[in-house]
Amino acid sequence: MPETKTQQSGNSGSDGSENDAPKGLEGVVVATTELGDVRGEEGFYHYRQYSAVEVAATRTLEDAWYLLFHGELPTKTQHAEWIEEIAPLRDLPDAMVELLPAIARAGDHFIPLDALRTALSATTYSLDYRPSLDLEPDELRAEAMRTCALVPTLVTSLYRLSEGHEPVTPHPELPYAANYLYMLTGEEPDPKLARAVEKYLISTIDHGFNSSTFTARVITSTGADLGAAVVGAIGALSGPLHGGAPSRALDMLDAIGEPRNAEPWIRNAVEHGQRIMGFGHRVYKTDDPRSLLLRDVAAELGGEQYEFARKIEDTVVEVLEEMKPGRKLRTNVEFYSGVVMNSCGIPRTMFTPTFASSRTIGWCAHILEQAADNRLIRPSARYIGPPPPQPVPDAE
Amino acid sequence: MPETKTQQSGNSGSDGSENDAPKGLEGVVVATTELGDVRGEEGFYHYRQYSAVEVAATRTLEDAWYLLFHGELPTKTQHAEWIEEIAPLRDLPDAMVELLPAIARAGDHFIPLDALRTALSATTYSLDYRPSLDLEPDELRAEAMRTCALVPTLVTSLYRLSEGHEPVTPHPELPYAANYLYMLTGEEPDPKLARAVEKYLISTIDHGFNSSTFTARVITSTGADLGAAVVGAIGALSGPLHGGAPSRALDMLDAIGEPRNAEPWIRNAVEHGQRIMGFGHRVYKTDDPRSLLLRDVAAELGGEQYEFARKIEDTVVEVLEEMKPGRKLRTNVEFYSGVVMNSCGIPRTMFTPTFASSRTIGWCAHILEQAADNRLIRPSARYIGPPPPQPVPDAE
Repeated sequence: MPETKTQQSGNSGSDGSENDAPKGLEGVVVATTELGDVRGEEGFYHYRQYSAVEVAATRTLEDAWYLLFHGELPTKTQHAEWIEEIAPLRDLPDAMVELLPAIARAGDHFIPLDALRTALSATTYSLDYRPSLDLEPDELRAEAMRTCALVPTLVTSLYRLSEGHEPVTPHPELPYAANYLYMLTGEEPDPKLARAVEKYLISTIDHGFNSSTFTARVITSTGADLGAAVVGAIGALSGPLHGGAPSRALDMLDAIGEPRNAEPWIRNAVEHGQRIMGFGHRVYKTDDPRSLLLRDVAAELGGEQYEFARKIEDTVVEVLEEMKPGRKLRTNVEFYSGVVMNSCGIPRTMFTPTFASSRTIGWCAHILEQAADNRLIRPSARYIGPPPPQPVPDAE
Repeated sequence: MPETKTQQSGNSGSDGSENDAPKGLEGVVVATTELGDVRGEEGFYHYRQYSAVEVAATRTLEDAWYLLFHGELPTKTQHAEWIEEIAPLRDLPDAMVELLPAIARAGDHFIPLDALRTALSATTYSLDYRPSLDLEPDELRAEAMRTCALVPTLVTSLYRLSEGHEPVTPHPELPYAANYLYMLTGEEPDPKLARAVEKYLISTIDHGFNSSTFTARVITSTGADLGAAVVGAIGALSGPLHGGAPSRALDMLDAIGEPRNAEPWIRNAVEHGQRIMGFGHRVYKTDDPRSLLLRDVAAELGGEQYEFARKIEDTVVEVLEEMKPGRKLRTNVEFYSGVVMNSCGIPRTMFTPTFASSRTIGWCAHILEQAADNRLIRPSARYIGPPPPQPVPDAE
C-alpha cells in the first residue's frame, strides 16, 4: 500500500518537520564561525580576517596557530611567550611512554591514523581531560594547547616505533615544523626543508566545515571532552573520501612512470570510471588555492619529481577538459602536498598523519568556538520503511 | 563598518548558499532511514516496522539486533543460527589481552567510556578493520557483528580490571543480556534480573538521529573504517548532554534522601536554575515511551528504591507543572534506567557503558545503512568575523 506508506513517512518525518536538507548537507549552513571560510567559486580561503595562503607565505606556524586561537596575529613579544608556552607541552606524559610501543604494534601492519586515534584517546584519558561542558574557557584552552602540541610527538613516535626505532624526544629549541622533521628523523633539518613543510602545515590547518571538523563540533556539542572530539575527527580524516589521498596521488605518479605514458594512462583511467587522484574538490570550482601555493613550494624545492608532476598536471587537466568538459577539474591540495612532503623526506605513510598534525590546530579552534556558544547538534531523519507499528509476531 | 561586514558575511556564506539551518540542526532532516524513527509528539518510537517497546517486551535482544540488521524478526531457525554466529565473536583478540590492563589503568581514575573508546580503537586496529569504502557489504557486516559482540566483553573486562579483578571470559551458552551480567560479576545471573536488563538493553539500541548516531554516520560518510565511526560515537555518547545522565538521576535520588525532602529540594533546585536529572527530552513532548517501559520493569523488580523513585517522579512532575507551566517535563529514559540497572546489580560506573553496549548495535546498523548508499557529509558555515582579506602585518 504505497499510499499508506507515503502518509506514514510524511507523518513520521521526525516531529512533523518538513525541513529536508540535501544529501551530504551540501551547501547547508549549520553554524556561524569567526575562524574562517572557504569561497569555492573564488578559489579563496581565509583564517580569521587574513588570506590563509598569505599567512602561510609570510608567517610561522605558531603565528597561524595563535591567530586561530586568539583572533589576531601575535606581536613579537606574544610570539615569544607563545613559543615558550608550547615547548614543554610537547613531551609525552609518563603513562604513554609505556603504552605507546604496545599501541604501535597492536596492528598486524602499521596504520598510522588508527594508531594515532588510539594513542591520542589513551593520552587524553591519562591526562584526565574533563567534559568540555564542565570546564572554564581557559581550562578547555589549556587542553587544546596540550593536544595540538602533543599530536606531532605522538605521530612521529608511533612511526619510529613501527619502524623499530626509539622515539625522538621533542627538541626544546626548535619551532613546530623543524621539530616535526627532527622527531621524524632524529636530525636537525635543513631550514629550507623545514620552511617548506611549515608552509604545507600552515596551509592545511583549517578548511571550512569539512567532515572531520564537523565531527569534532558534533561531538563537542554533547559536552564531551576535547579528546573525544579530536579522536572522532581523526577517525573522519582517516576516510579515503576525506584525508586519505596525498600518498595516493604520488602512487599515481609512480604508476604512470614517465611523461609519455601520461596521456594513455589517464584516458584509460577516465574511460574505466576510475578517480584521478589529486584532482577535483567538492567546494572549489576553480583552482584550489592550496594547490597553487604548494606548487610554488614544490617549484622552489625543484627536482625531477616536481617537473614530472607539473607535466602530469597539464596532461590531466587537458584530458579531463576534453573528456569531461565543463567540470573544471583542477589539482586539489593533495596533488602537490605529496610532492612537497616527499621532497622534505617525509615517508608516504606519514603524509596523512602530518596533515592530521596541523589540522588538529584547526579542530581545536573549532572545538573552543563550539564550546563557547554551544547547542547539542541533534538532527532528524525521514523514515522510509514499511509503516509502523505492525504487530510483533510471536517468537516461534 | 557593520555594513561591509554584513555584505561580506552574506557573500561568504559558503558557496553563495543561503540555506541556513537552525542551530543544533533541530528538526532538520539530514537523511532517510529504514531503521526506525521517533515520533516526539506521539511518544512513540520504532525499530523497523515494529514498536520498539513491544519488541523489548516480547522478544530477545538477539532478535532485536537481527531485526535492525536484516529488516525482519528472525524465525526460530534464524534465531538459533544467529546465536551461534555471535557466540565466538565475543572473545577478546589476543592483542587486547595484553593491552587491556594497561588501558584500564591509563587514567588516574577509571573513566569507563574513555577507557572503552581507547580499547575499542585498539581492538579494531588490531583486527585490521578496513575503510568501509573498500569493503563489500558482507565484509562490513562481519566487522559490525564482531564489534557489537565485543563491546560488552570490553566494557566488563575494563571495569573488572579497574577494580583489581581478572576479566571473566564470555559464557558461550548464555545469551547477550545474561552473559553481560555474568561477565560483570563472574556469576550466572537470576533469569529475572537478566530479563530486566535485557528489556533495558533492547529499549536503548536505537533512537533516531541522536548526536552519537549522527557522529557515526558522518565518520562513515568519509569511507573510514567501522571502528573509527563507533569510537567517534562513543566519544559523543560520553558528553553529559547526551549519554551521561542515568547515574546522575540516581545521585539525585540519593541527594533528596527521603520522600518528605522531595518538594523543598526540587523547588530549591528549580529556583536556582539547576537541571532536574532524568526529566525532559529534546524530542519527546509527552511521556518518553522508554521511561514507561522501564518504570514497569522497575515495578516488577519492586523494592524500596522503586517506591521512592515513583514518589519523586510524582513530586517533580507536580512541581514542574506549577513552576514551569506548559513545558510538559516528564521522566526521560534515564530516570528509571538507573533504578532498573541498580536493582540488577550493575554498579553506577557501568550505567553509561551498559547503554553504550546496546547502542553499539544501533550505531552499527546506521553505519551499514550509511555505507550502503553513501555521500560525504560536508556542510557549510557562515563566516561572521571581520571581512577578509585584510593585509597580513609583517612579523615584527
